[in-house]
Amino acid sequence: MKRDIKQIISQMTLEEKASLCSGLDFWHLKGIERLGIPSIMVTDGPHGLRKQAQGADHLGIYNSVPSTCFPSAAGMASSWNRDLIQKVGVALGEECQAEDVAVLLGPGVNIKRSPLCGRNFEYFSEDPYLASEMAANHVKGVQSQGVGTSLKHFAANNQEHRRMSTDAVVDERTLREIYLASFEGVIKQSHPWTVMCAYNKVNGEYASENEYLLNDILKDEWGFEGFVVSDWGAVNERADGLSAGLELEMPSSNGSGDQKIVNAVRNGKLSEEKLDNALERLLRVIFMSVDHKKENAVYNNDEHHQLAREMARESMVLLKNEDNVLPLKKEGTIAVIGEFAKKPRYQGGGSSHVRPTKLENIVEEIEKSAGRQSNVLYAQGYRLDSDEIDGSLIAEAKEVAAQADTVVLFVGLPDRYESEGYDREHLRMPANHRQLVEAAAEVNRNIVVVLSNGSPIEMPWLANVKGVLEAYLGGQALGGAIADLLFGDANPSGKLAETFPKQISDNPSFLNFPGEGDKVEYKEGIFVGYRYYDTKKVEPMFPFGFGLSYTNFEYSNLSISQKEIQDTDTVTVSVNVKNTGDRAGKEIVQLYVKDVGSTVNRPEKELKGFEKVDLQPGEEKKVTFTLNKRAFAYYNVDLKDWHVETGEFEILVGKSSQEITVKDSIMVQSTVYIKKPVHRNTLLGDLLADPVLAPLAKELLAKHNPFPDLGANEGDAAEMMEAMMRYMPLRAMVNFSMGAFTEEMLTDMIQKLNEYNCQAV
Amino acid sequence: MKRDIKQIISQMTLEEKASLCSGLDFWHLKGIERLGIPSIMVTDGPHGLRKQAQGADHLGIYNSVPSTCFPSAAGMASSWNRDLIQKVGVALGEECQAEDVAVLLGPGVNIKRSPLCGRNFEYFSEDPYLASEMAANHVKGVQSQGVGTSLKHFAANNQEHRRMSTDAVVDERTLREIYLASFEGVIKQSHPWTVMCAYNKVNGEYASENEYLLNDILKDEWGFEGFVVSDWGAVNERADGLSAGLELEMPSSNGSGDQKIVNAVRNGKLSEEKLDNALERLLRVIFMSVDHKKENAVYNNDEHHQLAREMARESMVLLKNEDNVLPLKKEGTIAVIGEFAKKPRYQGGGSSHVRPTKLENIVEEIEKSAGRQSNVLYAQGYRLDSDEIDGSLIAEAKEVAAQADTVVLFVGLPDRYESEGYDREHLRMPANHRQLVEAAAEVNRNIVVVLSNGSPIEMPWLANVKGVLEAYLGGQALGGAIADLLFGDANPSGKLAETFPKQISDNPSFLNFPGEGDKVEYKEGIFVGYRYYDTKKVEPMFPFGFGLSYTNFEYSNLSISQKEIQDTDTVTVSVNVKNTGDRAGKEIVQLYVKDVGSTVNRPEKELKGFEKVDLQPGEEKKVTFTLNKRAFAYYNVDLKDWHVETGEFEILVGKSSQEITVKDSIMVQSTVYIKKPVHRNTLLGDLLADPVLAPLAKELLAKHNPFPDLGANEGDAAEMMEAMMRYMPLRAMVNFSMGAFTEEMLTDMIQKLNEYNCQAV
Repeated sequence: MKRDIKQIISQMTLEEKASLCSGLDFWHLKGIERLGIPSIMVTDGPHGLRKQAQGADHLGIYNSVPSTCFPSAAGMASSWNRDLIQKVGVALGEECQAEDVAVLLGPGVNIKRSPLCGRNFEYFSEDPYLASEMAANHVKGVQSQGVGTSLKHFAANNQEHRRMSTDAVVDERTLREIYLASFEGVIKQSHPWTVMCAYNKVNGEYASENEYLLNDILKDEWGFEGFVVSDWGAVNERADGLSAGLELEMPSSNGSGDQKIVNAVRNGKLSEEKLDNALERLLRVIFMSVDHKKENAVYNNDEHHQLAREMARESMVLLKNEDNVLPLKKEGTIAVIGEFAKKPRYQGGGSSHVRPTKLENIVEEIEKSAGRQSNVLYAQGYRLDSDEIDGSLIAEAKEVAAQADTVVLFVGLPDRYESEGYDREHLRMPANHRQLVEAAAEVNRNIVVVLSNGSPIEMPWLANVKGVLEAYLGGQALGGAIADLLFGDANPSGKLAETFPKQISDNPSFLNFPGEGDKVEYKEGIFVGYRYYDTKKVEPMFPFGFGLSYTNFEYSNLSISQKEIQDTDTVTVSVNVKNTGDRAGKEIVQLYVKDVGSTVNRPEKELKGFEKVDLQPGEEKKVTFTLNKRAFAYYNVDLKDWHVETGEFEILVGKSSQEITVKDSIMVQSTVYIKKPVHRNTLLGDLLADPVLAPLAKELLAKHNPFPDLGANEGDAAEMMEAMMRYMPLRAMVNFSMGAFTEEMLTDMIQKLNEYNCQAV
Repeated sequence: MKRDIKQIISQMTLEEKASLCSGLDFWHLKGIERLGIPSIMVTDGPHGLRKQAQGADHLGIYNSVPSTCFPSAAGMASSWNRDLIQKVGVALGEECQAEDVAVLLGPGVNIKRSPLCGRNFEYFSEDPYLASEMAANHVKGVQSQGVGTSLKHFAANNQEHRRMSTDAVVDERTLREIYLASFEGVIKQSHPWTVMCAYNKVNGEYASENEYLLNDILKDEWGFEGFVVSDWGAVNERADGLSAGLELEMPSSNGSGDQKIVNAVRNGKLSEEKLDNALERLLRVIFMSVDHKKENAVYNNDEHHQLAREMARESMVLLKNEDNVLPLKKEGTIAVIGEFAKKPRYQGGGSSHVRPTKLENIVEEIEKSAGRQSNVLYAQGYRLDSDEIDGSLIAEAKEVAAQADTVVLFVGLPDRYESEGYDREHLRMPANHRQLVEAAAEVNRNIVVVLSNGSPIEMPWLANVKGVLEAYLGGQALGGAIADLLFGDANPSGKLAETFPKQISDNPSFLNFPGEGDKVEYKEGIFVGYRYYDTKKVEPMFPFGFGLSYTNFEYSNLSISQKEIQDTDTVTVSVNVKNTGDRAGKEIVQLYVKDVGSTVNRPEKELKGFEKVDLQPGEEKKVTFTLNKRAFAYYNVDLKDWHVETGEFEILVGKSSQEITVKDSIMVQSTVYIKKPVHRNTLLGDLLADPVLAPLAKELLAKHNPFPDLGANEGDAAEMMEAMMRYMPLRAMVNFSMGAFTEEMLTDMIQKLNEYNCQAV
């Protein structure tokens, strides 16, 4: 329905305008009945719908209307499956329509700076390209159903520790290349209806009143047309926030924020025009929601559950499979050990916590899959509500393990170990989980560990087990998915969207996480995740992009459409991938770009493309990638733009960040000329290396010959002398020429060079 | 002689005043005859005297008057011997007197941020305490002879790459704790006559015109009373430099700098008072030199040579001694291989290069020490002037090696690999040196490698050799020293003053060295050297403080004079050290302090004391250390002072940074109370943890009860809720209390708390 939003706004009093800029309560926006503006509802997400029962405030957080609990983002990202996450998005959109929810508060695309961040399970990756691709397709799916999303938490919210007060100090290039890039891709590709600003400060300003982030970058540069909503309680000074681009305060401040807006307009600190612009953005989304409302919408619980199972299967990552201990044979004795097998951990704690429509029991699903030829035993192994090692449970577990052909251990991190609200302080599993693995390994050599956790853990026992399946937080259908994968009814196809380090001190943020007081400095800069491990040559336990399959894939015929391009060109890369094993499977083909030589620090390589391909045994497919300027560029803070330095780039295609199977290189020519003025401190070496200025500089120097004795050096000092000249500022010639080159000659030379420079190009 | 310096200055014209603020030529200051101000001479150092022949400009740098070439600073630091380096200083002072040199331009106390820095051989350590202790004793020695020193290069000059233009961006705490601390100790302990400012910028300002460094810190805070001289050619804008505290420009700018000073005074940009102050500092040193001049001074070449040998022996570090391959027996066949054995590398390139009074030949010294029962063979192994592997030299070397009982290989870095002026780009030895080690190891199991190099190298062949002696750049008497150590006529007693990493990417500065363009950011902060390797748990090849002996030492009876102190107290730590072997030897006992818990990032441990003790077989000595506030403190940038947080500290005493043999702990109580004002963004958790404010805060909160439903949470979410409250800013209670806590109550509560806070303490 077409409405004249400006006209509607013009009918409002100042107080009405201000009132629309904050929530009615915890979950509803305000409406104005006389103007036909309804009160719409938003709810937490993003891997399910957390619509709280009527009247409940947000503090009773686990008492919500049942909805399908899909795997957490950490798992979904490991699927690297754009289509599948889009399907999940569609399902979430359907559930929102059925529950009369206008906007689902997600997805979260914050970068996993440290594996300790308590909320990592809600986020996708350490890599901004992967995160943005997954989130963009999530958003597409939800919004295809006429339901909005809220891309969060904008920006640099990479820890829970003191999250409402800490100041994330991040240099501009790092912001652009890492922490903003995961948002940028989604905004440009999928146009989320809303963006949620973060609690923290970014470079000294609250994200909720950060004009540079909210207005300059998000809206002006990226073209975001929706509204910005505060994370719940993120508003600092309401009028400053509105001025900086924060349209909606949530939850209600019981009139206090509204009053501040009214006062600011009245005393001239906030222009009414800014307020009107905010209302336009709010009303555009509100009416979009109204127009897309599907009356009496319903959804199919079972279908969504099946979709959750499909996503769970692709979310899990097979990390180790020595002696092909997996898939399990559907015969013999299988010991299933660990309380998780009966009380699964399938999602994380906090605002994303969903009340599932049903929940699979892992042991039962294993029994179903195992069939009648198998004997499935169970032992509890540990108590979930405690870290303490229970000797009798361990003894029982050993007894059961000793009887089995294969032991499947369900261990990981209990709820209290990771949640919104606080960070972990180490990467250890509880002592009783660890002890269980070690005890079982003492009595049986065929140990498979299935991990339930939202982010990486240490594995001191890794050498003692044959199989490791990282199940992440698999959602309500995790049980079936695990059974499918264990028995080979499905072939593992997930790959890690994050590095698993050997120890927490290996992580790039280690020396600066979670910061000091209310300041956290991102001193590792762009070297986040595999960008760091690769470049610093720190061997991870499992690298980014790694994951095993029950079949094998071979890569061949890497082909680049053009071997020399300009930075404005687009190039196509293709590679053949063949399933050389005897099972159907999916391979995630990864394309990385490496800048061979650069004047700025760049990572060893960066992910610039990926495709997941489904291959029958013996089948071969050609996979194609398209690369544009951005694939080769870094963010140049002086140019305030992405920039490609002329030179060679390697195109690396492979199975993981550390297993590159085919590669080739390409020459990229920059179309941007950066003119550098000459001054007293221009280095002689830089000047003599400048293609435009060198001839004139040599001519001018020859005239005065500042270093007549230079040829007379002994051989040993020749390198030093050459370096000395190369790094010498022009002004130092006055000191070093012993009177041959004067201050006046210097001034004259600089002037001549700059005049010439202005004429050139 | 007593002079009225102010009165002398008052007799000068403005032009005369300005003229004294720059050099007469390359090596002389100007004088004013009619006022009795002589023209004094300065020369390069610091491990010898580089007085250039009359008339030679500085570019013919290797043609200087002969003087004793002592080991380079990298080696002298490895002696950890305060008395011995002071003796070297005395000898240098004597040579200066004999050569009519008023000021020796050294020592250099720049911190070894990266092993790649081309000038590292001239610097002492990666640790500021060790560097400052060694330099302070060097200065004491030189100045005891009435000759000045020039502590250099102030400050943050930690690379040669673009050294005259690069901007070292270093946070204040890191500057204070690491890069300035090595200067601070020397200034306060030994009062060098002059300080030489660095070429580079520090945080945006040239070191030569950096008021904060030159005036605020060096002079006002530390009490430096001498003058600051520019590194040769480091002056940017002369008047700005003078204003910022740079008294002397070197070398001459042929009147251009002087004229700029005159102009600046004339046009009021520079006060004449500042100029007069500069002259006072200059004249004080000039006259000090005059008053201490020893007429017709001479020195004893042979005694100085013997001292150089003694220092060389203590400078060398035994890194590996498998199967006690060392000391060599004075019998059988010894193969000495490597051109270094005949053409030793004994000093580094650049301004510190000395023309020695004599130079020992290593092979000859070995032959002397080996005696008549031994057969010493020699093979060249490689050509020093090339990196290329020469097949015939390798073949010859193998043939010789195969005949010997033990093979001693002389390899390392040729002159062109490290020098002032440029940095290394990797840690590799030349291919032909490496190949020689590998080839020899193929034919003989008893390989000893003697390294000549100014800073660490990679040792991919380490497992294939039994002995490694790091000889550094051993000065003119290196040959005898090496022979003494190889045959056990002296017992190795040096320990590393720097970490030897396994690979360059392990170094903390790796991602930020040598910077981008003209900016190098010290993002590793205080985590330099072992502070990084320890804290990040990166295993080095050889740790800081490591070095072997031919005897053994045992530590016992660690005793701390008080177990609880205030930060204003001084505490004494003692430990017994016993020589349990059968040879006399010296042990370097190291004391490190570890802050057990801190609100700021601190290194795993920091060196705060060391003593070198000489012990006969079976002898035991008690070694005592005194610790004051600084030993426990970090630099608090808000307080602008060193600060100790109340808590436990461990006192760790041992043989190296990684071999702590005895430890104990101590409680230190801060005497500084830091009052924190309460504001809207004060965290609830911080407030409730504040010993002063918590009772009132609880009382005020109870009155309003913002969260009446809080008790009603499910168990699973309890941790999250608790964290949420802890990290919640007071202002957010307005949003989260659902109307129970208003903006007015917030304002009122903050006011009451601040009033109470003002009254307290």
